[in-house]
Amino acid sequence: MKNINEQLLVNETLFFVGNGYVGIRGNYEEGYPDGFDTIRGTYINGFYEIVDVTYGESAYGFPTTAQKMVNIIDAQGLDIYINNEKFSMFEGQVLNEKRFLDINKGIYTREVKWQSPKGNTIKIRFDRLTSFEVLELALVNITVESVDFEGELKIISTVNGDVENYTNSNDPRVASSHGKLLKVNKIKTRDSIAQLTCLTKRSNLEVCCSVDYSVVMETSYDAGSYSATLTRDMKIGSTILLTKFIAYTDSIRHKNLMLDGYKIIKNATKLGCEYFINIQKAYLDEFWNYSKVAITGKPQIDEALNYSVYQLLASAGRDPHSNICAKGLSGEGYEGHYFWDTEVYMLPFFILTNPKIAKNLLKFRYETLEFAKDRALEMGHVQGAKVPWRTISGTECSGYFPAGSAQYHINADVAFSYIQYYLLHDDIEFMKEIGFEVLLETGRIWMDMGCFTKDNAFMIHSVTGPDEYTAIVNNNYYTNAMAKYHLEWIVKIAKRIMSEEKSIYVAIMKRLNSDNDELERIAKAAEHMYFEFDKELGIYMQDDSFKTKPTWDFANTPKDNYPLLLHYHPLTIYRHKVLKQADTILAMILLDNVDIDIFEKSYDYYEPLTTHDSSLSPCAYSMAASRINRSDVAYSFFDKTIRLDLDNLHHNTRDGLHIANAGGAYMAVVYGFGGLRIKEDGIHLNPSMPDELSGISFNINKKENLIKVRLWERITITSETKTIIWIYENKYEIDGTLEVEYGTKD
Amino acid sequence: MKNINEQLLVNETLFFVGNGYVGIRGNYEEGYPDGFDTIRGTYINGFYEIVDVTYGESAYGFPTTAQKMVNIIDAQGLDIYINNEKFSMFEGQVLNEKRFLDINKGIYTREVKWQSPKGNTIKIRFDRLTSFEVLELALVNITVESVDFEGELKIISTVNGDVENYTNSNDPRVASSHGKLLKVNKIKTRDSIAQLTCLTKRSNLEVCCSVDYSVVMETSYDAGSYSATLTRDMKIGSTILLTKFIAYTDSIRHKNLMLDGYKIIKNATKLGCEYFINIQKAYLDEFWNYSKVAITGKPQIDEALNYSVYQLLASAGRDPHSNICAKGLSGEGYEGHYFWDTEVYMLPFFILTNPKIAKNLLKFRYETLEFAKDRALEMGHVQGAKVPWRTISGTECSGYFPAGSAQYHINADVAFSYIQYYLLHDDIEFMKEIGFEVLLETGRIWMDMGCFTKDNAFMIHSVTGPDEYTAIVNNNYYTNAMAKYHLEWIVKIAKRIMSEEKSIYVAIMKRLNSDNDELERIAKAAEHMYFEFDKELGIYMQDDSFKTKPTWDFANTPKDNYPLLLHYHPLTIYRHKVLKQADTILAMILLDNVDIDIFEKSYDYYEPLTTHDSSLSPCAYSMAASRINRSDVAYSFFDKTIRLDLDNLHHNTRDGLHIANAGGAYMAVVYGFGGLRIKEDGIHLNPSMPDELSGISFNINKKENLIKVRLWERITITSETKTIIWIYENKYEIDGTLEVEYGTKD
Repeated sequence: MKNINEQLLVNETLFFVGNGYVGIRGNYEEGYPDGFDTIRGTYINGFYEIVDVTYGESAYGFPTTAQKMVNIIDAQGLDIYINNEKFSMFEGQVLNEKRFLDINKGIYTREVKWQSPKGNTIKIRFDRLTSFEVLELALVNITVESVDFEGELKIISTVNGDVENYTNSNDPRVASSHGKLLKVNKIKTRDSIAQLTCLTKRSNLEVCCSVDYSVVMETSYDAGSYSATLTRDMKIGSTILLTKFIAYTDSIRHKNLMLDGYKIIKNATKLGCEYFINIQKAYLDEFWNYSKVAITGKPQIDEALNYSVYQLLASAGRDPHSNICAKGLSGEGYEGHYFWDTEVYMLPFFILTNPKIAKNLLKFRYETLEFAKDRALEMGHVQGAKVPWRTISGTECSGYFPAGSAQYHINADVAFSYIQYYLLHDDIEFMKEIGFEVLLETGRIWMDMGCFTKDNAFMIHSVTGPDEYTAIVNNNYYTNAMAKYHLEWIVKIAKRIMSEEKSIYVAIMKRLNSDNDELERIAKAAEHMYFEFDKELGIYMQDDSFKTKPTWDFANTPKDNYPLLLHYHPLTIYRHKVLKQADTILAMILLDNVDIDIFEKSYDYYEPLTTHDSSLSPCAYSMAASRINRSDVAYSFFDKTIRLDLDNLHHNTRDGLHIANAGGAYMAVVYGFGGLRIKEDGIHLNPSMPDELSGISFNINKKENLIKVRLWERITITSETKTIIWIYENKYEIDGTLEVEYGTKD
Repeated sequence: MKNINEQLLVNETLFFVGNGYVGIRGNYEEGYPDGFDTIRGTYINGFYEIVDVTYGESAYGFPTTAQKMVNIIDAQGLDIYINNEKFSMFEGQVLNEKRFLDINKGIYTREVKWQSPKGNTIKIRFDRLTSFEVLELALVNITVESVDFEGELKIISTVNGDVENYTNSNDPRVASSHGKLLKVNKIKTRDSIAQLTCLTKRSNLEVCCSVDYSVVMETSYDAGSYSATLTRDMKIGSTILLTKFIAYTDSIRHKNLMLDGYKIIKNATKLGCEYFINIQKAYLDEFWNYSKVAITGKPQIDEALNYSVYQLLASAGRDPHSNICAKGLSGEGYEGHYFWDTEVYMLPFFILTNPKIAKNLLKFRYETLEFAKDRALEMGHVQGAKVPWRTISGTECSGYFPAGSAQYHINADVAFSYIQYYLLHDDIEFMKEIGFEVLLETGRIWMDMGCFTKDNAFMIHSVTGPDEYTAIVNNNYYTNAMAKYHLEWIVKIAKRIMSEEKSIYVAIMKRLNSDNDELERIAKAAEHMYFEFDKELGIYMQDDSFKTKPTWDFANTPKDNYPLLLHYHPLTIYRHKVLKQADTILAMILLDNVDIDIFEKSYDYYEPLTTHDSSLSPCAYSMAASRINRSDVAYSFFDKTIRLDLDNLHHNTRDGLHIANAGGAYMAVVYGFGGLRIKEDGIHLNPSMPDELSGISFNINKKENLIKVRLWERITITSETKTIIWIYENKYEIDGTLEVEYGTKD
């Protein structure tokens, strides 16, 4: 039973439906029997409660509260009775079961052929969607077909406000307390539409669930829930069809959430189910036009990869109140917080294919900039903005600073994503409006915390890099390299704005209380950024002290002791040469700042020290292996990436999809096999195709111009308009189609 | 009122009475008016409750529970009424008030001349003692004398089991929760003795308070307390005298705590108050014979210093269940935990003057060694014992590992204290019995966590030194230096045992699963211990990365922002060159392992970087300044040390005495001005007298042999038996009296 239950929990995650606003886990509508564990959840992106954070011993500047994504009103409930025998997957006989997510239609379907204990057979089909066009709207179609049953069919549909968040005190990656976050506020009906609202206590937010049906139902209420019953006589071969229209409105986005919910449902029932199925398809046709990554001859890989791409779409926030949770909207792991995952692992996909969503995700850091500035002051900086390591509303929610607030690199990660967006879409207006301000404020932190040594090197102390298996170190390579890029681009963008529109430049600089002196200091810091280079090894060290530490005893570490963080005290891990995930290598991938010799030596040094305990690791190493033309290794890491959730490789897919890994899977193909980089002088491609794949194709949406990249027998690029692309560092101006032979980049 | 209240809280601490077993704060017997804050407390050394430790984000090996010293049954209550006017310091008129602790008699006295609102005048005197001979016993003598009052005097004495611990959520150095730890279990009387017991819930410990009086009282009870009333007619000039006999017994030390409490009180009332006052005096005469530190011509300094010495006696545990809490038994700060303070700052006093108590304190680490071995395994070590950073019962109670469990140096501190004791008293039997085992098990941690580099240097990574303003660093000088000493002495003691008694040696080595190979590895590690020496500065660096960090901006730090830990995030502090307290310098003091040139340069480098935010800092710097013959500076630091609690310099004396600072005050005189060190070849003295002091004298109890050291116009040493003493590195064999001129040690 334990294995069955675990797979059910994993499936709840894998079959979630979402549209960036609302996510509904793929729970069985009718639930499980007693004794089964379930994470029955529905979530709104950015809808949170405030919870206390406590410490064994507290210190100045430790966050005392955090946000937590709330499991909201449950509208999944649908119980089916035939002659009072209740449909259950665990009673009678399941003659057939099928669950699938159609990523072209945006519909999740569950089909069951069931024989009741008394021997009556029916077919049940549930189709679910969360609308990409009307974000508040979710639909469930229930189809019941009698195979050999004659008698009374009863469908009881419920909406339940008495819900709790999932808790688990044994896993640091899941919340250990704060289960009950919502209380029911109002239940009422207007016309045939039932509405139930719930309130959070401390964040003072309200959510409303409005429901109606395609047919008239008999309704009833209790203190925290609402139910509607349909009763029909069935004959052999007859089919009953019911559509449940659900709208989630919340007080963050809606002034009058009940009225708006009512209107959405009113309109939806008028337009009917078919309408929304059709526009869902149309939306996705447009999406796939830019986003499809085709893998020739490997249907399973193709499917898995595009499943990942689809989940990125299903997870990304569409308004300034939301971003992408660490688990998308598919589960409660990491409490629905937004991390650097968005900027480094997911924005590359959106920047390349969907600049509109990308721009919105970028804006989130601008919308929350004031919180980051407050946090900078609290963290002892006299200026600048310190991006929170994990947050929903914008304040720091990290309760363990050595692997939280100490990860200053997130400031540069945010800057990196702004710069990458700007470079591809040449959107200087966006930079003038908000981009430059974000860059400058986040960049000021480096100026405040960094210091020049006597030898005129600019050093950054006491930070943690992406690799959380070393913490609070000096001159972390990733941090310093990304900060250098960050600082350089502040100056470059300032110069461009000044050269293009002096008056705007003056106004911006005045508003931001900046001047040429500051820009000169920034340029100098970038120029003199310190990197610990080891001459003996011929590579950059992860930090100043990395080399002197003893190597982790991998040979004598039992397999069950991974991930190390669940089996060793942080100090044991920090004391050793051991990586959770790519760090130095990741900077080299993103920035393409070292030659292949150093890259190769670095790879050979760091990869054997890496446990890949982070889901963000295999995809990075896949890209790295591609960079040094080890396409077999690259493919092997890609394979792990693509199977991470489908095969539950980290044993915690139950808590939600590793959505950044989905972005990483995309990057392993496009940045890895395709060798794509966005640089100042244009798009660079350095394809390195693994033998296992006969062909890949993907597209780029550059300022609404579709660029098609086909990596088949030859490299074929098609562009609707004139575009510069570098292939193996050769410059091509494409206007139409270009074909090039495979080669290598040194 | 706030200032009055604060001083009352400070006085509660300063006038506590204790005997190493029980401590009673100097609360007003009758309490304060409503609105006044009070930490009304009585504590038994080692009597704890188990409380949960929670974390914002937990990780493997974080302690989930901690011990907390319990505020036990309150027997201080004494209310005095004259003609139903209740005596209060805040009503009527206090015509005279005097509070003093007589450290020669071991009695705290409070005298008040009070005029009631109606104009009646009485004199009240309370004398309290906690017996040094019968540790469970406390006495309170109440004397009421009528000045101009005629009428009814009523004294109501209470014993209250409905008590709570003090909590404060704003100060990380005080507990923020877990107030109510005790519940009343039994109340009963036997003969005239009233007994009240309370239970803890989770540690399952019980405490009993037994009370009787010198006269017959009228008694009554309620659910959680007991009261006894004395009523007398008074005439002008008449005096009423009452003695309250109190015994605290607990289930840690007493199988039948009620019976034992009964017997103690029965015996005490029979012997009478005077008896205990007399034996208290006799005990202290013996104590002061060895422990008195006389400061000629500075009565206030003399008094303050010997107050400190007395409080060490009042705080040190006398049985294997107890040690010395960070605040002695005078308050609840640091939750009654035992730290390295004992070994480094307090044991030197006991080793020099009271080997019996010293031996008991040393034994505590042996008694709890199994916990330390378990903790070592939990912390990822394959062998050895990891001494908890803070504990009562033996398990790690530190809730913030960067300034807790990361302080591995406590292992070497424990070893250091064993070695110092052994060296002075030549107690090889003690080493055979338990000392060598403690040394080896705690030393094995260095072998497990340290590593040899290619250059054959032995390095220790990811530790925090005594200076908590840098954390998780590599090759902390203090740690490595102390570990070197520790490892060297494992080998030396092994050799001595082997040479003296081979069979015992073989048995010990077998029991400890050790062999010559291990000893060789240990010797090699000690020999090749790595120290980061900076050639440019000519000194050892606090750790590998210390030098590259920017210096703290002391000039622009407002005075109110000290201590820094209460005003800056740990990362802000860690990022800078700034010390909370002596670190490298402290090792050099304790080990006397560098020549004066390096010492002086180190002092000049580190002292200006030190905030002295730790109460353990000024005394260390006083000793350091003495070492380099800057006796004026030494005196100035000594002055701060001696006044720390008396003048409430750290603004938290309310939470208890900085008892390690009391030990530090002693050390500033004996180790500082006297320049005393205990070494393998004997006692070394290098007096460096400040101009402010015309003379100092102190004694040494070497194997029950009294050695008198007089630093007057000349250096005079008197020894009852033949003793070797080194003065300014010249060897003297003293048998009687030796006089030497002042000089300097280079």
